Amino acid sequence: VTDYRTSIGTADSASITVLGQNLAEDLMGKVGFGELAFWLVAQRRPSLGELRLFETCLVALVDHGFTPSVLAARLTLTGAPEALQGAIAAGLLGGGSRFLGVTEDCGRFLAEAIAAYPSGSDDWEAMARMAVQARHAAGKLIPGLGHPLHRAGDPRTPVILRIAEQQGLLGPHLQLFQAVGRVHTEIIGRTLPLNGAGAVGAALADIGFSPEIMRGFALLARTAGLLGHLAEELRQPLGDAIYHDVSRAVDYQAPEKDASN
Amino acid sequence: VTDYRTSIGTADSASITVLGQNLAEDLMGKVGFGELAFWLVAQRRPSLGELRLFETCLVALVDHGFTPSVLAARLTLTGAPEALQGAIAAGLLGGGSRFLGVTEDCGRFLAEAIAAYPSGSDDWEAMARMAVQARHAAGKLIPGLGHPLHRAGDPRTPVILRIAEQQGLLGPHLQLFQAVGRVHTEIIGRTLPLNGAGAVGAALADIGFSPEIMRGFALLARTAGLLGHLAEELRQPLGDAIYHDVSRAVDYQAPEKDASN
Amino acid sequence: VTDYRTSIGTADSASITVLGQNLAEDLMGKVGFGELAFWLVAQRRPSLGELRLFETCLVALVDHGFTPSVLAARLTLTGAPEALQGAIAAGLLGGGSRFLGVTEDCGRFLAEAIAAYPSGSDDWEAMARMAVQARHAAGKLIPGLGHPLHRAGDPRTPVILRIAEQQGLLGPHLQLFQAVGRVHTEIIGRTLPLNGAGAVGAALADIGFSPEIMRGFALLARTAGLLGHLAEELRQPLGDAIYHDVSRAVDYQAPEKDASN
Amino acid sequence: VTDYRTSIGTADSASITVLGQNLAEDLMGKVGFGELAFWLVAQRRPSLGELRLFETCLVALVDHGFTPSVLAARLTLTGAPEALQGAIAAGLLGGGSRFLGVTEDCGRFLAEAIAAYPSGSDDWEAMARMAVQARHAAGKLIPGLGHPLHRAGDPRTPVILRIAEQQGLLGPHLQLFQAVGRVHTEIIGRTLPLNGAGAVGAALADIGFSPEIMRGFALLARTAGLLGHLAEELRQPLGDAIYHDVSRAVDYQAPEKDASN
Repeated sequence: VTDYRTSIGTADSASITVLGQNLAEDLMGKVGFGELAFWLVAQRRPSLGELRLFETCLVALVDHGFTPSVLAARLTLTGAPEALQGAIAAGLLGGGSRFLGVTEDCGRFLAEAIAAYPSGSDDWEAMARMAVQARHAAGKLIPGLGHPLHRAGDPRTPVILRIAEQQGLLGPHLQLFQAVGRVHTEIIGRTLPLNGAGAVGAALADIGFSPEIMRGFALLARTAGLLGHLAEELRQPLGDAIYHDVSRAVDYQAPEKDASN
Repeated sequence: VTDYRTSIGTADSASITVLGQNLAEDLMGKVGFGELAFWLVAQRRPSLGELRLFETCLVALVDHGFTPSVLAARLTLTGAPEALQGAIAAGLLGGGSRFLGVTEDCGRFLAEAIAAYPSGSDDWEAMARMAVQARHAAGKLIPGLGHPLHRAGDPRTPVILRIAEQQGLLGPHLQLFQAVGRVHTEIIGRTLPLNGAGAVGAALADIGFSPEIMRGFALLARTAGLLGHLAEELRQPLGDAIYHDVSRAVDYQAPEKDASN
Repeated sequence: VTDYRTSIGTADSASITVLGQNLAEDLMGKVGFGELAFWLVAQRRPSLGELRLFETCLVALVDHGFTPSVLAARLTLTGAPEALQGAIAAGLLGGGSRFLGVTEDCGRFLAEAIAAYPSGSDDWEAMARMAVQARHAAGKLIPGLGHPLHRAGDPRTPVILRIAEQQGLLGPHLQLFQAVGRVHTEIIGRTLPLNGAGAVGAALADIGFSPEIMRGFALLARTAGLLGHLAEELRQPLGDAIYHDVSRAVDYQAPEKDASN
Repeated sequence: VTDYRTSIGTADSASITVLGQNLAEDLMGKVGFGELAFWLVAQRRPSLGELRLFETCLVALVDHGFTPSVLAARLTLTGAPEALQGAIAAGLLGGGSRFLGVTEDCGRFLAEAIAAYPSGSDDWEAMARMAVQARHAAGKLIPGLGHPLHRAGDPRTPVILRIAEQQGLLGPHLQLFQAVGRVHTEIIGRTLPLNGAGAVGAALADIGFSPEIMRGFALLARTAGLLGHLAEELRQPLGDAIYHDVSRAVDYQAPEKDASN
């Protein structure tokens, strides 16, 4: 049997250890929840500025109305009201490539663009042009650009940029992200907004998080939003009404004989 | 088609509204993540004292080592490393009656004990005696008493009580909970510790949360803990080693012929 | 380290063993999928009659239109089209007490009614009267009675009863279930249909399955139904349209100031 | 509001329709569960030969001992024994790219190899050589080749091939798959077994299923296997022992000061 090495947490009869700290004595009452979430993933405590920017990102992603995730969570509670964990899990499971993927895609896109350029360069517009052109030429979308609803501008983006600047955290990824906003029109031929999920990806990258874990923070933020929806659903249920309204709009058609698989 | 009434969130092309606030202008950078989670469920902003106690509770539940939930999350990532949301969901799904249920069971137990007594009474020990005796006579366990590991005392409990007291939030549920700690020995014939999950239930009840939503906060706390474990699992995977070690310890026996269902 | 005893399956470099059988030589091509599912849970192979009745039950529960579960699965696929397992999991998570619970509730209700009566009795109507009266007097619903849609009769129930009779498997639970159908009107004052989920619970109980595992068969059946919906969703997606239609019907109201938790 | 077009199922007060059939009259007692699962996805009824091969594939994937999925399911039941649906969901969530992905990867690999060759060709070895060389040159693994445990041969593969041949269903994908088995050694310089998951992918492709739905059948098969494990776990729980054994083997190390994110 292997020894499983971990730095997250352990417990014995007298104490609980998390991140090398005594949970009861050193963490409870002394560290905020957002701060601890940062620490658990980064394995280091954030500076005050980092924490401010990090919590701004979590708040940015907490809710966006009746999204597919929220609907899945509410409808799951309708069938299994005794298992709140199942409803939250169902809501999180929609957090895949299409909605939550933007954050990590943008983080990765920016990191690769920076890595492809001579180290130390800060000609963000040149770098942005090269990266946007490459993707555009390949027929691919630019991560972080565009939003189906906020077509004229995602209101979250300027706030993230402003707070990063105030905290002295406008690093290479955020600066490149801003440059993408300035140069893309001339390349792709139309103007798209820098979306909030992309701004979060850039900010988290500047803080030092790797793209593969970024989705996790979006999921954490969404868990709080889902809790709000589910608490409301427990007080005044909508699941049955949604189910019946959707059911009534079904247009049933028997399968065609020659349907392909 | 019904109109689905909600107070959580909505969005239009220019703005995102959460809890009646403009997300970008009024919340981002101005409210902490823990505070927003409280607000989303309670539909009201916490006082500073409530927030302090609330975040202490979240921190208390964030991690307890390699629990079944953590193992399920890590093993799920082993099979589906591209779907972090699935690993977190798998970890949350173990948050049912047996581990996370203690918090709400204790909140409900205390609330019922208070409701069964003449309104306005503050004879917590008499109330505790009546409630503990009733359950003990019925052969049931007392929610919030006992812990499989922390047999001599759960280190989280005194911290929650102390912070509640400092913040002037030692309400009826927490006072009754303390009284249960003082009187149970004479009734059940042995001394058990007041556990941390129970203390959280009492504290959340004093803040005003209903038992049915309490599990949700434990799940939110756990989401941060799971993120820490999964970030570590991405850096240095343990899932395969755990799988192989457990597999090797299997003692396979063909089914007996007369097995019952 | 413990040895973990199991009779389900194991594998070594040369062979795979399931239920004490060589998977490749003894099971593949020789046992049907439904038969193997029965065998895995019961730890014994079904008779042909049992298999017929068992598969009839699975088929009965495979689909019931655009249920909350189906909606949750389709909406989850919308957000995470690359993770089919997440969409199926989300669909199954709505399989809790409210819809799938009927099967086990009915199985348990019938088993308790039989156990409460002198052993060997076959006066099903007397037994049914006693059991229905007891629940009715306690203000509880009778499991297996009533259906929100099929008010005049659930079309699945007579088929399950007929096939059980044809196969000589009309055991005590199904006979008691039929008697509940005959006697309940005089006790509760109105006539309700025997629902299909209840009939499945009675049939599975007569086959010998315990109530706590019955939900599992409903989940297995539903997995096939969800697969059908998700395959269709991949061919012609509805998730976005459902999301947008529901979103548009939202009536947003800012929280009241004095909202309780 | 859109009309949501579907061919899967619908219900009214008198009847339930699935796949254009009357569920109670035309399907219950007349179609097997495996057959209905095929029909739901393919939107057509299988021939007897197709059904035989299809069920052989499901049986092949039903269980492979104490896999990470099985462990996740059992450990989830330990924490939430009242929510069987959560334990099954947790088990399915590990069904991602790494284990279940092989089936669809192989189906897609074979389909692309066939499509890259002049239509109508049946020179499987030439086709296999071209496809294997292309992937090998790109430094990629060949889907369907190799197994971590069954190094000298996966016992499921020859059975799938034999049954496909017996049923006259040895189509282009299975023939190309066999050719990959014959030619890969000369190209990659070592001999690897054709694995069972890959053989299932080839067989399902020959039946006419698209790669993107293949994982669904593996998940359906696994649901039955998980049910077997969970029924056993309910009878004789192992979750706590696994949890405690793994916990005891943890080697806790406080985080280093300079840990990167």
